[in-house]
Formats: sequence, C-alpha cells, structure tokens
Amino acid sequence: MTKDNTGASRQAGLGRRDFLGAGVLGTGAALTGLGASATSAQGTGRAAPQVDFPDERGTFGGGGAAAGAVNRTEMDLRDCEVEGDWPTDLDGVFYRVGPDPQYPKPEEHKFDIPFDGEGHVSMFRIKGGHVDYRTRYAKNARYKAQAEARQSLFGMYRNPTTDDPSVQGLNRGTANTQLFLHHGKLLVFKEDSPPVYMEPLTLETLDPEYTFGGKLESQTHTAHPKIDPLTGEYIGFGYEATGFLSKDVNVFTADKRGNITWSVTVEAPYAGMMHDFCATQDYIVLYLVNMIADENRIREGGVHFSYDSTAPCYFGVLRRGGDGSDIKWFTGPNYFCTHVMGGWNDGTKIIVDMDGGEGNQFPFFPSLHEPFDPVKAQGYLRRFTVDMADRGNDQYEATTIFPEVSGMLARQDDRYHTLPYRYGFLNVVGPESGWAVIDHATKTSKVLSVPGYRLSEMCFVPRRKDASEGDGYLIGLGSSMAEGGRSDLILFDLADTSGGPRARVRMPYECVGQVHGFWADASDIPGAA
Amino acid sequence: MTKDNTGASRQAGLGRRDFLGAGVLGTGAALTGLGASATSAQGTGRAAPQVDFPDERGTFGGGGAAAGAVNRTEMDLRDCEVEGDWPTDLDGVFYRVGPDPQYPKPEEHKFDIPFDGEGHVSMFRIKGGHVDYRTRYAKNARYKAQAEARQSLFGMYRNPTTDDPSVQGLNRGTANTQLFLHHGKLLVFKEDSPPVYMEPLTLETLDPEYTFGGKLESQTHTAHPKIDPLTGEYIGFGYEATGFLSKDVNVFTADKRGNITWSVTVEAPYAGMMHDFCATQDYIVLYLVNMIADENRIREGGVHFSYDSTAPCYFGVLRRGGDGSDIKWFTGPNYFCTHVMGGWNDGTKIIVDMDGGEGNQFPFFPSLHEPFDPVKAQGYLRRFTVDMADRGNDQYEATTIFPEVSGMLARQDDRYHTLPYRYGFLNVVGPESGWAVIDHATKTSKVLSVPGYRLSEMCFVPRRKDASEGDGYLIGLGSSMAEGGRSDLILFDLADTSGGPRARVRMPYECVGQVHGFWADASDIPGAA
Repeated sequence: MTKDNTGASRQAGLGRRDFLGAGVLGTGAALTGLGASATSAQGTGRAAPQVDFPDERGTFGGGGAAAGAVNRTEMDLRDCEVEGDWPTDLDGVFYRVGPDPQYPKPEEHKFDIPFDGEGHVSMFRIKGGHVDYRTRYAKNARYKAQAEARQSLFGMYRNPTTDDPSVQGLNRGTANTQLFLHHGKLLVFKEDSPPVYMEPLTLETLDPEYTFGGKLESQTHTAHPKIDPLTGEYIGFGYEATGFLSKDVNVFTADKRGNITWSVTVEAPYAGMMHDFCATQDYIVLYLVNMIADENRIREGGVHFSYDSTAPCYFGVLRRGGDGSDIKWFTGPNYFCTHVMGGWNDGTKIIVDMDGGEGNQFPFFPSLHEPFDPVKAQGYLRRFTVDMADRGNDQYEATTIFPEVSGMLARQDDRYHTLPYRYGFLNVVGPESGWAVIDHATKTSKVLSVPGYRLSEMCFVPRRKDASEGDGYLIGLGSSMAEGGRSDLILFDLADTSGGPRARVRMPYECVGQVHGFWADASDIPGAA
Repeated sequence: MTKDNTGASRQAGLGRRDFLGAGVLGTGAALTGLGASATSAQGTGRAAPQVDFPDERGTFGGGGAAAGAVNRTEMDLRDCEVEGDWPTDLDGVFYRVGPDPQYPKPEEHKFDIPFDGEGHVSMFRIKGGHVDYRTRYAKNARYKAQAEARQSLFGMYRNPTTDDPSVQGLNRGTANTQLFLHHGKLLVFKEDSPPVYMEPLTLETLDPEYTFGGKLESQTHTAHPKIDPLTGEYIGFGYEATGFLSKDVNVFTADKRGNITWSVTVEAPYAGMMHDFCATQDYIVLYLVNMIADENRIREGGVHFSYDSTAPCYFGVLRRGGDGSDIKWFTGPNYFCTHVMGGWNDGTKIIVDMDGGEGNQFPFFPSLHEPFDPVKAQGYLRRFTVDMADRGNDQYEATTIFPEVSGMLARQDDRYHTLPYRYGFLNVVGPESGWAVIDHATKTSKVLSVPGYRLSEMCFVPRRKDASEGDGYLIGLGSSMAEGGRSDLILFDLADTSGGPRARVRMPYECVGQVHGFWADASDIPGAA
C-alpha cells in the first residue's frame, strides 16, 4: 500500500485557505481555478463564482464557516431540548431577526457593514412545554435576485449607486432589523423599505413588499412600529419617505385589520437616522439623531450615514390625527439615542425614555469631526421632557436616569406602548452582560445574568395575555462562551429571579444572530390556537 | 443596582443539568417540574414530557446538544462555501442517510443501539460549481407517530414487543441505512421494512412504504439493492421476508420503470443478518452471517440479534430468473462480512469480494459464547469463490486479498454491479482514517487521507456518465478533528491524487451522520436537468 501524498502537497490543492484552517494561504497555482471563475455571472452565460467567504474578520460575512461566523442555513428543529420548569401554559411564538450575509461581497465592497446582511428570521414556537425552532430568510426581491444569480448584487449599505446594473431600481431592503405581528401578519422590517409579510407559522414569504393594501404612502417603514393598547391600532412611520435622501417623514396609523386610518407627511430639519420613535395617546414623537444621510459619502461609494457631532439632534412632536402642520422640533443636549423604552403624555406634557450615548454609538458609521469615542458611546437611559403648551420653548429637557445601568436596546412590556409605564428593560453589554430590569415606581434596578453567557436582546412575555404590567417572563438568547457560542433560549420568571433562569431550551448550535426579537401570543396568530 | 443572585443559586433553577455544561446535577427541587410531566402522553390528554436527551454517552441519542451528539435539525443551505478547483461540469446529487434519534428513549430502553435512530437524509445538489445542501427526515409511519406524540414510542432495535401499545402493528422501519435512485424515485432503506420513497430534490416523503406498485412480495427490503448496468434492472431482496423472524428470503428484479419482473422466495438455513448481497449477470448470491435473530433475547426485551460463533455462515446461490428451487447453500471459513465490493460470474464460476472480520464486527450486538474481540473484528477484503458446476462440493473458497488494507464499507464504481470489475474502495478506519483505492488489475492499493480528518464512507462519482471504469472522483464527508468535528465534503480526483483533495465544500457545522451514501447523475433525477 502506498500513502499517496504528504500533508504539504495536499494542502496546495485546496485553494486559498489551508485545509486545516490554520490560515496558511495556498499557492498561486491553486488559485487558478478560483480566479478563472471569479467574474460576474451577469450577461456572460458563465457560472457565477464559487461561494467563498473571506477569512478576514471585519469583512462582510468575514470569518466564514470555520469561524462559525456564517450560518446561512434555514432550519427546522422539532422539539428542542427543554430543561427546567418551562411553563406549560405559555402559548405563542418568540420571533427574532438579524442580518445573515447571503453571499460574500466583491472585493470593492468587502468592508460593507454587517447591518447590510440579508434578514434571516427565526422563531421558537412554544406550546405545552414544547418548543419547535424554525428559521427562514425573508425572500424579498433582493434575496431572490441574488439567489438566482448565486452571488451578491447589491453594493454598500443603503447606497444604490454601488449596485450591479442588473438590479438597478429593485427594492434594496434587507428585512433584517425587527418584526411585528399585527392583523395576523408577520411583518419584517428594514427602515429603508416597506415590510416583508411572512406567514407567521411557516415563515413563507407571502408579500416581499407589504404596503397595507397599497395604502402605505411612505416608501420606507420603521423597524419599530407601536401598538395603541386601548384601540389595537398599529402606529408606524417612515423617514426618507418620499424618496432616497428626502427629508420627508410619513406617520400613519392602521386599524386592527390593517386598514390605514391616518397618514401625514412632515419635513425633518435634515435627512438623517430616525431609527425608533414614540407614540403616546395624543402625540407622535420623532427623534432625529445626528447621524446624517451623507450625499458625499454615498457619491464616493460609501455607506449611507456619517456621524456629525456639530449637527443638533431633534425631538419632533405632532398631534396624532392632525394634518402635521403642528409639528414642532425641539433641541437640547445632544444624545445619540436609538431605542425608546417607553413614553406617554400627561396633557400637553410629553415624557419619553430612550437609551443613548453622548456620541456616536455605531463605530462602523464614520464620524466626520473626531475619532470614535467608546466612552461617549456608552448608553444610559435618558428621560426627555417637553411641554407642548409652553409655546415659546423649543428646547427639550433631557436627564440621565438610572445612571448605575449602562446598556442599550431598551424594551418595555409592549402592552404599555403609548401609556405611563412602570417596568423597562435594557441590554447590559460587555463582560457583565445581562438583562437590566428597571422599576420606575421604586426607582430600583437589577441585572439578570448567567455566568459565562453573552445575552442578546430580551423580550417581555406576559404570564397571561391579561396579566398585570411586568407580570411574566423575560425571554431571549444566550451564547455559552465556554461552548463556542452555543445558544440557549433563556427564560427568567420575573416573579422570582433569585434562583436564576426558570428554564432554558438547549440548542445544539449557535443560532442565527439577531438584532431584535418580538413575542406574539398564540391567540393573535392565525392557525396557532 | 442589585445583582440579584449568585452563580451557584442560579444553576439550581435549571433542572438536572448544570447550565454551564460542567456535569453538576441540579437539586431535587429543580427536578419537580420535569418529574411531574414525565408520564406518557397516550390517552391522558396531558402534555408529553419535555424533550431532554440523556447526558451519558452510550445511551440512545446520548450526549445531547452540548456534546454535539444530537442534531435533529432539518436544514437548507443554498450555495455552500466551495474551495479549490471544484469541477463545474459535475451535475448530480450526493445523497447520504444515517440514524438521528428523533426522541430520547424512556429509561428502560435508553441503552438501545444507535442503529435504531430515525433516518435523516441529507443531499448535496452539485451543479455548475455550486453546491446546495438539504436535509430531511424520512417521514414514515414511525416518524409521524412519534412527532405527533412528541416522544419515543418504539422500544428496542427490531423488537416490536417493546413498543408503546399505541403503535402496535405499525411499520417499525427507520429508513436510516442507505438510499438509491431508480425509476426517478429516491428510495430510502432499512432492511426490516419496505423503502420510503422521497422526492429526489425536495426530499419530501411521498410514500412512507413503497412497494413497487403493490407488487413487492417481501415485507422487508435490503439496504443494498443493485443495478444491472446492461439492462438498467433493479435487483433487490428482503430477509425475514414473510414475517418477523421468518427464514424466508425474497429476491426480485424490477425494470427501468420499477415494474417487478421476477420475484422468488427461498428459505435460509436460519433467520439471521443478511445485510448485503451480490448480483452477477446470471446468479444471485445471498450471504447469511452468523448474527442470528435471537428469539430469547427478543422475548426478554433486548435487541434483535446475537452473534453465535458456533453457527456457520452461509453463501447461498440461485440462478437469476429461476424459481429458486436451485438454491444451494455453501459453507467454509466463517467470515463476518457485511458489504460486497463487487462480484461476477464466469460461466458457472462465481467470484464475490466482501469485507469482513474473523468475528463479530458489531459490539453492540452481544456475542453468545465469548467476549467481543476487537482484533477478530478487523475487516479485510475476502474473496469468495464457488463453482456451480461442481455439484458435489458445498464448500466455498475464501481467501484474504489486499491484506495490507484493513477497512470496511466496501464500495465500487456502481456501474460495474454484476460485472467483472477493476477498482474497489474501502473505508480505512481508526487513526489512519482514509479511503483505500484497490486496483485488482495491478494488485496495488493506496490510501487517500486528509491529516486531522476522520472520513466517512466515500462514493465513486464517474467523471461523466459514460466515463471508463474508475475515471472520476471519490466524494464523501470528512470531520475536522481540530474544529470539533466540523464537516467538509471532500472531493478527490482519481486521475491525480498526488496533491490531495481537488476541492472541498466547507460546511459551517458537523453535518448529520451517515451510514451510507449514493451518487445520482442529474440525468436520472426528474426535474434536475
């Protein structure tokens, strides 16, 4: 018997990565095969290039399979492993979504940001103490065009000038940020485009561009709509609403059946990021952060935004149901806020709690005037107050509350949208990763954590649909650091957190990543009851 | 801010496993929730127990998610990462199947053997240099009943006396051993039951119990049918063909469209394991290994087989197309053979090559008379010869060929079933894991291996459908030991193996396990062209 080769010669045949994952580059000869096919598939009739994600961390989809950084697999796992005292009366779905790069980018776009990855939706269907896991990509126009071509066709983050000519004019939305169940539809959001409508149980994409029966006036839609719990109304908005880089902001409401009942368009002081917003019983609050839509950067082939510390942040207020002409823009201490914990109005007085830093929180969007400052990026809970009756005052008040908790991705018991609220939640990041529980009534906070785990954004789950505020669970994913990031779905019972999590679902792998998650009660999901 | 708990108290709330995977058992109090629901779901209207695979290695599905031992996830990964010079003209599917325990077993059956796991089929669709991965369970009666009940209902390996009363009489087949594409159908096999018919591209289960249009006379079907390359006929058999523990063996052929054209039933000397067989142009060769169907063990609730070193192995020969009355059973040196590499007849002289040991190769089936002997279990290629014209001789000749190669799972270029053949392949197991290439013409062998990888059974892929014998590739899965078992699909080009593998598909995880694999050319797959 002859052993046919040595380790050294063996690796040379395997292309540009060492077979053993040690990072040794292959020889030039070995690159021939890849190089020959690494041309565009468009219009040539040739095979698209083989899919090979870059090794470099920091690149789009970088790290590849060996690093566990790319997991584009759509999955179905019936009956996950459940441990602990999982409540058998919990009946609903915990949905998540995040970017999961569908294809590597060509060389000139390989440093595109992670937020430009295509939206991969996952769900945990929970019933009778059993948990089924399912994931599907949102199969919108962008996904389908790239799947057909078997390569990336869209260039840099929200910059259509960088796209392949074959997809000019196509909806660029990635549906990768948040999702929401309303009028029986699972709507998946990217703030530069209309929602994608997916069937809530199969995750089949039913409408790649959902426009509320053609009535959505905005060309875009926020990732963070709200529900008015008193009426069941859906409240949404879109910025750059009338076209790319426009300053227009459209705000609308839809009834329980998804019929748009109010729609108004107002103009913002400049085109910039408006990631979240607040709806109260009587007002809509828009928040324009000084992350400006940067025409120069876009023209040069870069990403959509630049952080401009010289620009003021604006807190814009208009009455619900009005014609928008009452919009009033307030300024004050500049806080880089992305997410709203809660907000309400007491007559003309409006209170909104948002998490935010003193400076840019997104290092992947360049700062125009100074280097990124990680200290100023730290998020704290900021309480904004304005009084619409105080006509001469166009300044908001903003104070830091709960300064002992630094975090981001603020949430609340979603049944208290628009209303005064008691409980809020923050993701505490870093080595002390955890879920902060904020109690505005007692002005106390605590942080729930699991040693050795990095926790993703949590979601509040009411114990029953009619449970009182904050009576229920926090649910979310945790990554076990000692197990290569393997995921658990973790459930804390807020009635007693002293013993740690009440139960967990032990997944066999690291689940697809997320930005946000959403809990839907089974009674709201067609076919789930 | 108050940290609400310590690591120690936190773990107690998580049930019987330490949250951090360190193997510390939880407290009795924490078990309450699980214990209360750990009763049968049948007829009680109560929720089935939560799914929680045992920690112990060696148990059915043991090791659970944390050990990576259980991966029951059905997957779709479009455009896997491909590296190296993947041949763009290769067009077909590499199918695999193996047991993947659907549910943990109750305490009394928890040491059931891995071969009783439900069949999870995977496929690599290969075309134009691109590779798509898909896996689905074979959704037969057993799978569906257990999925519905959300727990295991079938007891020990091929022992129906151990089943839950609710599934008495149901087909116990697991479809976990091998698969085969013929007359446009993907047939998935377990040798105790008829094939499961799955759609070859979607892997949807179309017939949980495929009987060739109702014409299959056997109640069982081998995992290793053959093709007659001259006629395209399908040649199959089943043992325990007329009922559980029967000595009857049914042999049949079907034409290119799946119409059964010949079917005959013969009686074996005793009921025992007949895993593979050989078809030549003129003869059928059955091989009965001394792994007896053990009524006593079955009655006591154990597995189906016992190894009886005192029983002779039998080599049975009958003419193709006859009525079976010519069956002749030969004995000789006892070799525990499971797989046929190839075989043919030269007039009345019949030559069959099988891999086998001198004793029991399956330690999970108990030996009746002596302890398991790992040295006697070592597999070598054995050449069996008989001459049907030598009427007075009922002894086969058996000699060991290529004694320098120890291995198992013998394969050949499947286009040479029934015919004299030159090239064979063996899986070399152990630390020197590799794929042995046997050349009968030059009487030489070589072993292809990849340092640091454990290789599964390979499959030969012709370079083109009409390529000469052995002109093509070896394809199969490899597990990277340094990366926790992460899988690569490895392709060796037999025209030049000196540089190691020609290409690989780098998977982001350890793929579901396999027993066997099968290559199907796209031209044979409906809808694939």
